[in-house]
Amino acid sequence: MRNSVPLLGAFLLAGAAAALEVAEAAASRTRATPHPDLIDDLVAANRILADQGVVDGFGHVSVRHGADPGRFLLARSMAPGLVSAGDILEFDLDGNAFEPRGRALYVERFIHSEIYKAHPDIRAVVHSHSPSIIPFGITNVPLRPIYHMSSFLGAGVPIFEIREAGGPATDMLIRDPGLGAAVACKLGGAAVVLMRGHGNVVVGQSIEQVVFRAIYTEINAKLQAEALRLGQGEVAFLNAEEAANATATNNLVLGRPWELWKQRAFRPR
Amino acid sequence: MRNSVPLLGAFLLAGAAAALEVAEAAASRTRATPHPDLIDDLVAANRILADQGVVDGFGHVSVRHGADPGRFLLARSMAPGLVSAGDILEFDLDGNAFEPRGRALYVERFIHSEIYKAHPDIRAVVHSHSPSIIPFGITNVPLRPIYHMSSFLGAGVPIFEIREAGGPATDMLIRDPGLGAAVACKLGGAAVVLMRGHGNVVVGQSIEQVVFRAIYTEINAKLQAEALRLGQGEVAFLNAEEAANATATNNLVLGRPWELWKQRAFRPR
Amino acid sequence: MRNSVPLLGAFLLAGAAAALEVAEAAASRTRATPHPDLIDDLVAANRILADQGVVDGFGHVSVRHGADPGRFLLARSMAPGLVSAGDILEFDLDGNAFEPRGRALYVERFIHSEIYKAHPDIRAVVHSHSPSIIPFGITNVPLRPIYHMSSFLGAGVPIFEIREAGGPATDMLIRDPGLGAAVACKLGGAAVVLMRGHGNVVVGQSIEQVVFRAIYTEINAKLQAEALRLGQGEVAFLNAEEAANATATNNLVLGRPWELWKQRAFRPR
Amino acid sequence: MRNSVPLLGAFLLAGAAAALEVAEAAASRTRATPHPDLIDDLVAANRILADQGVVDGFGHVSVRHGADPGRFLLARSMAPGLVSAGDILEFDLDGNAFEPRGRALYVERFIHSEIYKAHPDIRAVVHSHSPSIIPFGITNVPLRPIYHMSSFLGAGVPIFEIREAGGPATDMLIRDPGLGAAVACKLGGAAVVLMRGHGNVVVGQSIEQVVFRAIYTEINAKLQAEALRLGQGEVAFLNAEEAANATATNNLVLGRPWELWKQRAFRPR
Repeated sequence: MRNSVPLLGAFLLAGAAAALEVAEAAASRTRATPHPDLIDDLVAANRILADQGVVDGFGHVSVRHGADPGRFLLARSMAPGLVSAGDILEFDLDGNAFEPRGRALYVERFIHSEIYKAHPDIRAVVHSHSPSIIPFGITNVPLRPIYHMSSFLGAGVPIFEIREAGGPATDMLIRDPGLGAAVACKLGGAAVVLMRGHGNVVVGQSIEQVVFRAIYTEINAKLQAEALRLGQGEVAFLNAEEAANATATNNLVLGRPWELWKQRAFRPR
Repeated sequence: MRNSVPLLGAFLLAGAAAALEVAEAAASRTRATPHPDLIDDLVAANRILADQGVVDGFGHVSVRHGADPGRFLLARSMAPGLVSAGDILEFDLDGNAFEPRGRALYVERFIHSEIYKAHPDIRAVVHSHSPSIIPFGITNVPLRPIYHMSSFLGAGVPIFEIREAGGPATDMLIRDPGLGAAVACKLGGAAVVLMRGHGNVVVGQSIEQVVFRAIYTEINAKLQAEALRLGQGEVAFLNAEEAANATATNNLVLGRPWELWKQRAFRPR
Repeated sequence: MRNSVPLLGAFLLAGAAAALEVAEAAASRTRATPHPDLIDDLVAANRILADQGVVDGFGHVSVRHGADPGRFLLARSMAPGLVSAGDILEFDLDGNAFEPRGRALYVERFIHSEIYKAHPDIRAVVHSHSPSIIPFGITNVPLRPIYHMSSFLGAGVPIFEIREAGGPATDMLIRDPGLGAAVACKLGGAAVVLMRGHGNVVVGQSIEQVVFRAIYTEINAKLQAEALRLGQGEVAFLNAEEAANATATNNLVLGRPWELWKQRAFRPR
Repeated sequence: MRNSVPLLGAFLLAGAAAALEVAEAAASRTRATPHPDLIDDLVAANRILADQGVVDGFGHVSVRHGADPGRFLLARSMAPGLVSAGDILEFDLDGNAFEPRGRALYVERFIHSEIYKAHPDIRAVVHSHSPSIIPFGITNVPLRPIYHMSSFLGAGVPIFEIREAGGPATDMLIRDPGLGAAVACKLGGAAVVLMRGHGNVVVGQSIEQVVFRAIYTEINAKLQAEALRLGQGEVAFLNAEEAANATATNNLVLGRPWELWKQRAFRPR
């Protein structure tokens, strides 16, 4: 059910340029230098998600390595709004960092590693505590697409209850591969999974797409809650075909808001 | 029912200056250079609507050509907040661009072309996903004027349901002249038409007026929803005469907020 | 019931400095130069109210002349956020401007002139469409003080219905002295009067006080509406003595937020 | 029940460096110079709380002296967003300032002095009128943790009613040690106490922790109110074990948002 988009040119370029390095890395467990454009886009994603209010001091965004699908890129443990290229680390699908050089890692990196392991078609992951989405994770009201921009929600939005996989006394965090695998399983073929009392995870097939989805999931949540109150529960949602068709269309124009968001995230202030 | 305002001086000047060029353009299908002030105002409208939160990465604003009512000006496909003078293209009323030189066009330019075709008195059009208005398009609660600033809503606010003209499986977009004509028809003599699961269209007789209306439609939607909750459904709206009279008055002071919005939209940040 | 605060030093200084000029002005109908500090404070009030979201492109703030209680200062017709010292005009209590030199005047200056005429103790007036207050003017829910910062609301908040004084077909504006007098009468001894379908007027005994009140009336409205929903109508308000005592205390610390607001309103951006 | 965190290095350093000075201060009633890092952090806390919307022109934050637990640091009476190092004063636990040199003091400094006196484990205190929390102080809806970031609310959030300690006709302020002691008593072992019709107090074991708590209490209040409406009263909160465990985890990552908040609070604008 996940929508297919062409591989970004950056991925292909990175693939060509980094092939030799990947082979070496596999032998020596050193870092396989990804294409600089991919790192730049990941830094931009961090800054955009902070600027747009999806993440605050917490939350993270990752991308699968362009040349080696068994690796992904993620910042060291820090606020996304402060991430620069030098903060990006490379991880394997068990959540181990290559060349961490003593830098602290996100406890919840297993959200990313297990999703990449379970879902080969997913190329980018955002975890956040995006505010308007929190109430949908702690009530019984399904998050559904109210307009075409958030049509990717039409595939359904499951809720992950950590008590099922981790028992009644966790600290709520996805702090090991087992919990990460449970999140990846609950996600299934959806674009978004909510985490009760915690936040949500959004997935996509490119950095641009996952950022687009994270931002419009937040907006949909805010406006859906408003519409339910205004209409006293009576709201017209997109139907399944409208949702699928709008998603295919949106995938062709992901670059349009990306340029705006990037310009705003990096503007001098 | 649409309120009449004097033609802007810029339109008249453009008319005088561009008369010869228009004749040539008709023969050669080249672009009829509009008056620079009109392009500057259209750029400002793009920036203002972004700065005021009416548009985000999507949405667009157009103006009818000052010299040739059979043409209109609209940016190439891009985020409105980034539009500059060089991005403005000229279109005919079938939605064909003059001298596009390979630049991407908004898929939904037919909203504009068909409204200009059907409504000769309309000189400016905004299409947006203005957030607070979305809930009114997907519920049965009519958008009505709660105060004098949004009195133009007193002419009624119809809702366009794309399923009526496009069937149950569109991608929600106004991607051809037929759908554009259906929007133009549903608009009728109103200043605003809502689009279910999509956004809205605001029309006016000048760039300043359509920007004013787009901004105050957003504010009215937000405050009307709030008032309905506070008053548990009991709200005093403007009556028809108050709405008509306030609209005539507002048309005389459109320049006052315009100067402020423009200064804010272009301030260095 | 209105709380008494000491005259600002600026008023007294202005009184001494401008005495001669006032005498001349009475004869020649020329402008009685007010103390520069008073003009600076009025400019700051305009900028602060815009920066804090009380006014947008519309709304205005005035102050009674320091030397001549029969005059007041108010900007020419323009957005408050753009006002500079050169835009301040002097008016008599019939709303006539001294030396307008062709500059456009606010249609609604009679709100100010008639309030100064009817209420000798009032020294500053703000008229705005402050957003969160609008719903309280069009429903039957009284605006009441939810915390000590807005304790001045304890004197009651009447609603002005223009249909009573102006009939059912006005353009909603206070465009003549008669309507201004009706607003001044409805205000009575309160600090705030709401205008149905329009906005509100806040009064005070100094520029600092009226700005303080305008800002905290907006905040109170927003939080009171929220509290009523949260408590399903059950909310604990300040009692009359708490409101009166807190108001006396607040009048001693008006300068504290003023310095912050001024710094923010004039910061380079 | 209060969670234990290691003393900040700054406290220990200050302890070593300032020991001699404290002895002198006890004899001469002069100020015991605290470690500069502690003052810098307190200035940052003032700026952060203003930048994040927890405080406006009012509110204050203090920290217990690093070397002398019988003293604490607090700004002179001014808006927190304007505080610099030179504005920080030192107080004893009766609320007396050392070397005030004529500077005005916060009337409500007794909130701080009495909490430090009654609760030896508390090292930092924030008092604010944080907006979203106000409605919870004037209704009967308990503030409870909706997600892991605000898990410290799991210890309960009492409401201080000033009429119990001060009678029905106060000015709502904590203007003497007796009222301060009543607030400290009502706080008990909680991290937050609400003040009816006034604001709230948040406590912690370091500046970073108390700022973290003040910000996430505001966010929790906003999102809990939203969730209660969305779920029509049915909301899943953290259970006691989840709250305790998440709090222990959060205490390990307080520095992550702190760096972001500090960068934002001091950015040139």
